[in-house]
Amino acid sequence: MSDLISLAHGSGGEASKRLVAEIVEKYFRNDVISRLDDSAVLKIGGGRIALTTDSYVVDPIFFPGGDIGSLAVNGTVNDLSMVGARPVGLTFGLIIEEGFALDDLKRVLASAAAAAREAGVEIVGGDTKVVERGAADGLFVNTSGVGVVPDGVNVSSANARPGDAVILSGTIGDHGVAILSKREGIAFETEVVSDSAPLNRLVAVMLEASASIHAMRDPTRGGLATTLNEIAQKSSVGIVLDEASVPVRPDVCEACDLLGLDVYYVANEGKLVAFVPERDAGSVLAAMRASRYGEASAVVGRVVAENPGMVTLDTAVGGHRVLTPLWGELLPRIC
Amino acid sequence: MSDLISLAHGSGGEASKRLVAEIVEKYFRNDVISRLDDSAVLKIGGGRIALTTDSYVVDPIFFPGGDIGSLAVNGTVNDLSMVGARPVGLTFGLIIEEGFALDDLKRVLASAAAAAREAGVEIVGGDTKVVERGAADGLFVNTSGVGVVPDGVNVSSANARPGDAVILSGTIGDHGVAILSKREGIAFETEVVSDSAPLNRLVAVMLEASASIHAMRDPTRGGLATTLNEIAQKSSVGIVLDEASVPVRPDVCEACDLLGLDVYYVANEGKLVAFVPERDAGSVLAAMRASRYGEASAVVGRVVAENPGMVTLDTAVGGHRVLTPLWGELLPRIC
Repeated sequence: MSDLISLAHGSGGEASKRLVAEIVEKYFRNDVISRLDDSAVLKIGGGRIALTTDSYVVDPIFFPGGDIGSLAVNGTVNDLSMVGARPVGLTFGLIIEEGFALDDLKRVLASAAAAAREAGVEIVGGDTKVVERGAADGLFVNTSGVGVVPDGVNVSSANARPGDAVILSGTIGDHGVAILSKREGIAFETEVVSDSAPLNRLVAVMLEASASIHAMRDPTRGGLATTLNEIAQKSSVGIVLDEASVPVRPDVCEACDLLGLDVYYVANEGKLVAFVPERDAGSVLAAMRASRYGEASAVVGRVVAENPGMVTLDTAVGGHRVLTPLWGELLPRIC
Repeated sequence: MSDLISLAHGSGGEASKRLVAEIVEKYFRNDVISRLDDSAVLKIGGGRIALTTDSYVVDPIFFPGGDIGSLAVNGTVNDLSMVGARPVGLTFGLIIEEGFALDDLKRVLASAAAAAREAGVEIVGGDTKVVERGAADGLFVNTSGVGVVPDGVNVSSANARPGDAVILSGTIGDHGVAILSKREGIAFETEVVSDSAPLNRLVAVMLEASASIHAMRDPTRGGLATTLNEIAQKSSVGIVLDEASVPVRPDVCEACDLLGLDVYYVANEGKLVAFVPERDAGSVLAAMRASRYGEASAVVGRVVAENPGMVTLDTAVGGHRVLTPLWGELLPRIC
């Protein structure tokens, strides 16, 4: 590893993973952090709570389909949801560059408040720091959150099992393409908007349909390919993805072609991938399709015992391709 | 209010307070956030948990007596402790500027881990973002934390009552002077070191001595004067401070004279001020003096019914001075 931090260390791909595994985890070693789920699950009293944090440095802070405020709230709601927790309270921390427009701050706060209302969770605390001009880029946000894990729910990236159906809640690549289009000033025939959305209600109906869901993740930085690789590795299973069944919007597909992006590595902010025992896959899928943000859900693959730690794509033309985790930096400051 | 964010908005003084009260709170209005304690207290199941967040932008990140890593861990441990909660788990979020030295990151992580060990709390989750050169200043840290509030404990800035003794846990001004000396390259005869320290064990023995402690705060940004003003306002009481009994290190006093700082407004990172019913003041003070980080504790004032919302200083020479809250920016990026 080089002796300086590079943008790749923030990509969500292999360089990020190594930084966390070889450096951060080395210092903070304990049973909870080494699970590396989207939230930490802690026993408190007789129950379990989930705790999670995310800092947001997205550039630009306003983009089609959202802004740094709603993105931060939705992201933390989703991280709690991915361990099956019901979000209870969020904190909202601001690092603001001197000279930032108060009107833009108000817009971000209004958007964060609206996102919290939609998710049905309250922002209960916060913190505001201001740094001098040039010491930050406009506005960074941190959201942390706490939730309650219902009894009987045990969802973790380490729990996927051979035989599980892999269910994706909708199209992939929307968020990354929306950010990049805005940042680069590229206009497509139809505007691609971010999929940023709170997934807690979707997860609630999924867990009602089956309390035995093994694993859930929202494929953000590093995209679906990187997320699936993490689950394959943590669970020591193989994952076979069926390209033809993975939903991609035609304009996102076109944009990826034009920009030279592989859609499997592009970030999403309102999608989840779930690993569901085969017997429950039908009922979970039906519940998802009947729920907001899950209308385009599809079974996109299956878990196998072969090739543990590996993700294979059965391509639309009948070939096979290994989907490696992201290495390096695809899109800096995507969230 | 001007239409641009200024450094004063991050000072912890009146401008910060107005930004939060008039803007942030307007959007995030709810019962919990409007208490504006150091942590939010939430009912979960049969019990209560505390949730808090802080972003750290201290400059320089390494300073006498600590660094951004230990400061962040201690700060969040202390914010939980100030509502009487026992810290259970912390998250550690990093925003790193591209090109930051990996060795410096390791130093910060090691220091954060050591601080967590000392406090007896685990860092259970984290997040790492990297931004391009020039988009941040080296390293920003966010720590959030969750704790359990013991039954029967009800500590809040709104609960101070006339008759309460005001107990301070030690000398004031050490952190701010340490940062400023380092930043400005000023050397004093003896090096002033930051008081950054975890106060959870001190608070535990205080609550053992009296479960009726009314209010606690750690006087960080804005210093003791600003913290006391917030409590006076939230509790609608007057506070009379006795200058002769407020402990200040002679070198800190000298440094403040030289730098033109009023020590009552200088930040502390390992001190607390407690509002204790008079009948329990003796036992709480004795417990504090017998505990690490509380050896120099002293009764420094009393709560009165007169002049609600106002803090008055009885000066050493027999005069009276109103201690207003901090307005503007005393020391940017102190934490």
